[in-house]
Amino acid sequence: MSSNSFGKLLTVTTFGESHGPAIGCVVDGCPPGLALAPEDFRHDLDRRATGKTRHTSARREADEIEILSGVYEGVTTGTPIGLLIRNTDARSKDYGRIAEQFRPGHADYTYWQKYGIRDPRGGGRSSARETTMRVAAGVIARKWLAGRHGIRIQGWLSQLGEVAPAGFDLSAVEDNPFFWPHAAQVPELEAYMDALRKSGDSVGARVDVIAEGVPPGWGEPVYGKLDGELAAALMSINAVKGVEIGDGFASVAQTGSVHRDEMAPEGFLSNHAGGVLGGISSGQAVRCSVAFKPTSSLRLPVDGLDIHGNVVEVVTTGRHDPCVGIRAIPICEAMVALVLMDQALRHRAQCGDVGEMSPRIPAEAPAKKR
Amino acid sequence: MSSNSFGKLLTVTTFGESHGPAIGCVVDGCPPGLALAPEDFRHDLDRRATGKTRHTSARREADEIEILSGVYEGVTTGTPIGLLIRNTDARSKDYGRIAEQFRPGHADYTYWQKYGIRDPRGGGRSSARETTMRVAAGVIARKWLAGRHGIRIQGWLSQLGEVAPAGFDLSAVEDNPFFWPHAAQVPELEAYMDALRKSGDSVGARVDVIAEGVPPGWGEPVYGKLDGELAAALMSINAVKGVEIGDGFASVAQTGSVHRDEMAPEGFLSNHAGGVLGGISSGQAVRCSVAFKPTSSLRLPVDGLDIHGNVVEVVTTGRHDPCVGIRAIPICEAMVALVLMDQALRHRAQCGDVGEMSPRIPAEAPAKKR
Amino acid sequence: MSSNSFGKLLTVTTFGESHGPAIGCVVDGCPPGLALAPEDFRHDLDRRATGKTRHTSARREADEIEILSGVYEGVTTGTPIGLLIRNTDARSKDYGRIAEQFRPGHADYTYWQKYGIRDPRGGGRSSARETTMRVAAGVIARKWLAGRHGIRIQGWLSQLGEVAPAGFDLSAVEDNPFFWPHAAQVPELEAYMDALRKSGDSVGARVDVIAEGVPPGWGEPVYGKLDGELAAALMSINAVKGVEIGDGFASVAQTGSVHRDEMAPEGFLSNHAGGVLGGISSGQAVRCSVAFKPTSSLRLPVDGLDIHGNVVEVVTTGRHDPCVGIRAIPICEAMVALVLMDQALRHRAQCGDVGEMSPRIPAEAPAKKR
Amino acid sequence: MSSNSFGKLLTVTTFGESHGPAIGCVVDGCPPGLALAPEDFRHDLDRRATGKTRHTSARREADEIEILSGVYEGVTTGTPIGLLIRNTDARSKDYGRIAEQFRPGHADYTYWQKYGIRDPRGGGRSSARETTMRVAAGVIARKWLAGRHGIRIQGWLSQLGEVAPAGFDLSAVEDNPFFWPHAAQVPELEAYMDALRKSGDSVGARVDVIAEGVPPGWGEPVYGKLDGELAAALMSINAVKGVEIGDGFASVAQTGSVHRDEMAPEGFLSNHAGGVLGGISSGQAVRCSVAFKPTSSLRLPVDGLDIHGNVVEVVTTGRHDPCVGIRAIPICEAMVALVLMDQALRHRAQCGDVGEMSPRIPAEAPAKKR
Repeated sequence: MSSNSFGKLLTVTTFGESHGPAIGCVVDGCPPGLALAPEDFRHDLDRRATGKTRHTSARREADEIEILSGVYEGVTTGTPIGLLIRNTDARSKDYGRIAEQFRPGHADYTYWQKYGIRDPRGGGRSSARETTMRVAAGVIARKWLAGRHGIRIQGWLSQLGEVAPAGFDLSAVEDNPFFWPHAAQVPELEAYMDALRKSGDSVGARVDVIAEGVPPGWGEPVYGKLDGELAAALMSINAVKGVEIGDGFASVAQTGSVHRDEMAPEGFLSNHAGGVLGGISSGQAVRCSVAFKPTSSLRLPVDGLDIHGNVVEVVTTGRHDPCVGIRAIPICEAMVALVLMDQALRHRAQCGDVGEMSPRIPAEAPAKKR
Repeated sequence: MSSNSFGKLLTVTTFGESHGPAIGCVVDGCPPGLALAPEDFRHDLDRRATGKTRHTSARREADEIEILSGVYEGVTTGTPIGLLIRNTDARSKDYGRIAEQFRPGHADYTYWQKYGIRDPRGGGRSSARETTMRVAAGVIARKWLAGRHGIRIQGWLSQLGEVAPAGFDLSAVEDNPFFWPHAAQVPELEAYMDALRKSGDSVGARVDVIAEGVPPGWGEPVYGKLDGELAAALMSINAVKGVEIGDGFASVAQTGSVHRDEMAPEGFLSNHAGGVLGGISSGQAVRCSVAFKPTSSLRLPVDGLDIHGNVVEVVTTGRHDPCVGIRAIPICEAMVALVLMDQALRHRAQCGDVGEMSPRIPAEAPAKKR
Repeated sequence: MSSNSFGKLLTVTTFGESHGPAIGCVVDGCPPGLALAPEDFRHDLDRRATGKTRHTSARREADEIEILSGVYEGVTTGTPIGLLIRNTDARSKDYGRIAEQFRPGHADYTYWQKYGIRDPRGGGRSSARETTMRVAAGVIARKWLAGRHGIRIQGWLSQLGEVAPAGFDLSAVEDNPFFWPHAAQVPELEAYMDALRKSGDSVGARVDVIAEGVPPGWGEPVYGKLDGELAAALMSINAVKGVEIGDGFASVAQTGSVHRDEMAPEGFLSNHAGGVLGGISSGQAVRCSVAFKPTSSLRLPVDGLDIHGNVVEVVTTGRHDPCVGIRAIPICEAMVALVLMDQALRHRAQCGDVGEMSPRIPAEAPAKKR
Repeated sequence: MSSNSFGKLLTVTTFGESHGPAIGCVVDGCPPGLALAPEDFRHDLDRRATGKTRHTSARREADEIEILSGVYEGVTTGTPIGLLIRNTDARSKDYGRIAEQFRPGHADYTYWQKYGIRDPRGGGRSSARETTMRVAAGVIARKWLAGRHGIRIQGWLSQLGEVAPAGFDLSAVEDNPFFWPHAAQVPELEAYMDALRKSGDSVGARVDVIAEGVPPGWGEPVYGKLDGELAAALMSINAVKGVEIGDGFASVAQTGSVHRDEMAPEGFLSNHAGGVLGGISSGQAVRCSVAFKPTSSLRLPVDGLDIHGNVVEVVTTGRHDPCVGIRAIPICEAMVALVLMDQALRHRAQCGDVGEMSPRIPAEAPAKKR
């Protein structure tokens, strides 16, 4: 199987370099009968897109998506869906002088060691430009999951450098450029980011994603577990260094009597597990958390090496985000959606004849114990 | 592809329930010519095995492994290697009374919702008994990686509940039952575990694994990245709730000027990335960290539900570890080994003709900057 | 994916050498709730087994199958089904003297060139012994297909050397040791085989398989077509040199006006296509035909080479069938069953929500036009 | 894995409908360092293209291919290669009146039964238009196989309806529009085809393909055998009804003493096996033969059904070939090339360290015995 493909029954294959003619993907396995039009992609591509605020990269991409196949008279036909976006704002000259440099913290050196050749323009294949197609494919998955199962997927920024939310209101997330769940902190974040940009440095970020409405029973033990596949999907995003499900690393210091989520006829009394037990969804909200490292593309000069082994000074003058995690929220949401839809189809394949098992416990008890 | 299979070119397929007749696996894709005998498996299976100290479950398994195929006159032939372990100490009667109960924090409810039927004896397929075969398969990968590439893989317990190591000496790890890297703390840990056992409760654990000697160039962008596959492999282990590569979640609060690992002709000056850049190994040590939740099998009673929807009191009287993370170290090592060997073969397939690229930077500078 | 695995959603992984300790397989993806017991395997294993008549190899295998996992209280649970058969009649000494010889027409030379090592005992992995596990896995598929979809799969010998059936009565097939569809020819076939055995030579055979009751819509264009997967499945059987769907090579000399199967409200008027159009089942009987070469294990001496490049005389004195195609009928049936069940699950995954489309045309018109 | 993907390590994913905006493919797994330019595709795309002679369809496609990714400065980089061809001559109006008809012998009915919706324009996804991308992907494989291993792949028409070659000269094949290996018959074939076109009917064809220079050792037993994968690849081509390896169905009537290819130090004495033993290449020429049915798109009217169950008269007035097999030769060659390159990479992955085994027998003895 292609190492540029993701998913078993809903398979996404992406291609394209940051500054090549185009990026694209093939989404295979989508059931027939889903209404799909180019405008469906607009909202999520915009949320991921650069150039929207001064806090993200100044590169401007129209990101006009073209549906090349798989849709007839506005409806999916069950055949592969080809999606294409032309790269219109590829200023290759910006990158010319780093063609022979290995930028610290980038994939330059590792691509060189692997392939013996690399496309240095804008990071080539290792650029986060590839994630545009993840978001596009994710749009299809989100639409199907929402329409068929009523599933809602929502991400937010849960940490920006050392700043954590001082409150939590999910409805605030889409109303500020930081996808921050506490509106009152936005001025503080803007000042933080302005200072950061001025310094020429960058910071990491933490992104949380929740999927509500996932029915119990999705996930395939033991090497196709729902949490295992979420981990693979999220860790494959550029700059990600960690993934948690439910309480994640906080579970280490918990006792079992605290962590085990009690079940009552009126619902689960807590959700430390993050909606997954034994690799299978429990019907509770699926919760994950993702760590993004600070981007290594900095105006601050640093010593590096070139392909001849010489020490060179590396300065990144291109257009880069001081915090790549901000734009990553729709990417994380998309990966969660793709994993869930794939698992939905896999569950239907093997267990379609099981039906809804009794007792089915509500996701959450009316008044939680904890 | 089977959801009970792992790996693309080195493929491990496991089968078996905790209290069924046997557990086993098929390891396919191992190159011919590797010397392999039943005694090769002894050391790692013993490290994983139960009943060795009072701090792990009292279940005693001989875990005598049988090589059923793929080896001729002590050497692998390139054909699939079948491995089998009979379950000799399966006291099914211990579990009889929970056949209709959903134990909180276990996979009972989710298996029921998925399949409409489950083998309740000892957790059935969801039992950590399955990980025995991961360790067995991992033995093959470790032997091949060591012999052909000189790679050493070592794990240790980096946190036990709220206790963190007060010092770090890798050579101490194999000399204490906690795989703890600071020998002086062992009495403290024993007291901690004794108190825990007496209380009937459990705690989580954090396991770190390092792989040294991995050459640069392993890993397949973008959906077969080395870190993505490590995340999938480690998250698929029972009770795992989080995975980090390199600095992991600590990267969130770092600045880019700190995180980006500088390269000098004499070697990398730091290793925040954990040996992976752009999903490809850099030649530095590959570092990962894994969070284990506290086991939910407790003597402390808790309200649960049964398959008829009735509230029942659940008490686990079987043999269980108060901290499952301790025995998980060889499992984590095995999964890292399996991922690395698979990537080694994949790299050889696509880039076998590239050869060793110049300049190849040492894993670490003689005197680190940081 | 393991090259010893077959199928996408119903995945069969086999292992084992002809004269090793055991052969076995793992069947993954079987839906939960299928009744399954060791005695279900008896009939088809016996049909494949050796030693039943003087016209097949004298090797006697009890072929006692053990279900190691995936079944609880007589019913499948959705977890992988491990199956094992011990090799009880492995007379390795029979084969000792050919350990360094390359037998013409066998895989000895090619395994040697591929792996640089081979298990020469009874052909090792290249022995048709492996097909026992195909038959075993096929039993599960046949039972599921029959129970859920009413599908009947039946094979017969449609040519033995130069002898073709002089009549056709499917009900005769199971009542003679040749699976021959015309009972009156059985004495002729016995004389033919006796003469062949006496001569020390062998002949090829042609096997036809029909699957009735397959609903329209199974098969995944374009690289997972039903006919493409049947071809892969059947060609992977030892000694197979050709596969046809429907009229096969006879289509070459047909005109389009003859070949295209007309549809009428009362049913299809012919079935030249063999039940597959565009890679998808049409609802008509799926028909395939398979060519088996004559076995190369002959008592007739022949010049060969050894691993040192010397010319040696090769005589096969072991137990071998003068016509391997006879015993291959349950193997072909099993492969057809495995392909169909896999496609059934794949269809349910993607199109489970389509339902039964109107108009659904009967498989065959009451009075065929042709 | 996508059902529109083919290959394990060299993976080709195609998308696109006959009359949609474009067709395309993603070729993943190609090693870095292969020179590749748009003009490399011209020769084979032209050989497959329509409108070249009066004996093939009158549809004219420029088939201008665009390389969208994976190539930097004229050389492959190891990242996925995106290829795109715009559909410029899609006269959808030609097909309007058959949107609700099921044409006999076509995939109309089966797509309808599977998906409940279909793109009727020019056959949509079931059109042979898709094979254009197989040829394009095959160009990459052929170039790599020729450059690295000196492998030559050549196909020819070995039967046209009832006409068989009266002589055999491989050098004649590319000099006539029928890819016919006996030049003297070309006028006869032209008269045959003219009469056929006038009659409004069509005929089938047989295509042979030979691959010379394949080293011994390629192919993965048992479900990734070289012959099994060739069968899958060739049977997946539109209109194919049969596949043979080596002597194919002629093996049925052969005796073992004839069929088994003798080996001598100076080379193999015959090649009945077609270069594959036990699923692994022997170093001899790999030979396969493919049966194409007559196209069902005829000017001759026929009764059919529509989606409402009514009987309708079906007449195909679009542009269609009276013998689709003629244009299929480069498609067959491409599929053989893709299978071989995939197997080459798989062999290198598992057995790269075996090296060239001794004795390596020449493909053919100077003077063949048979």
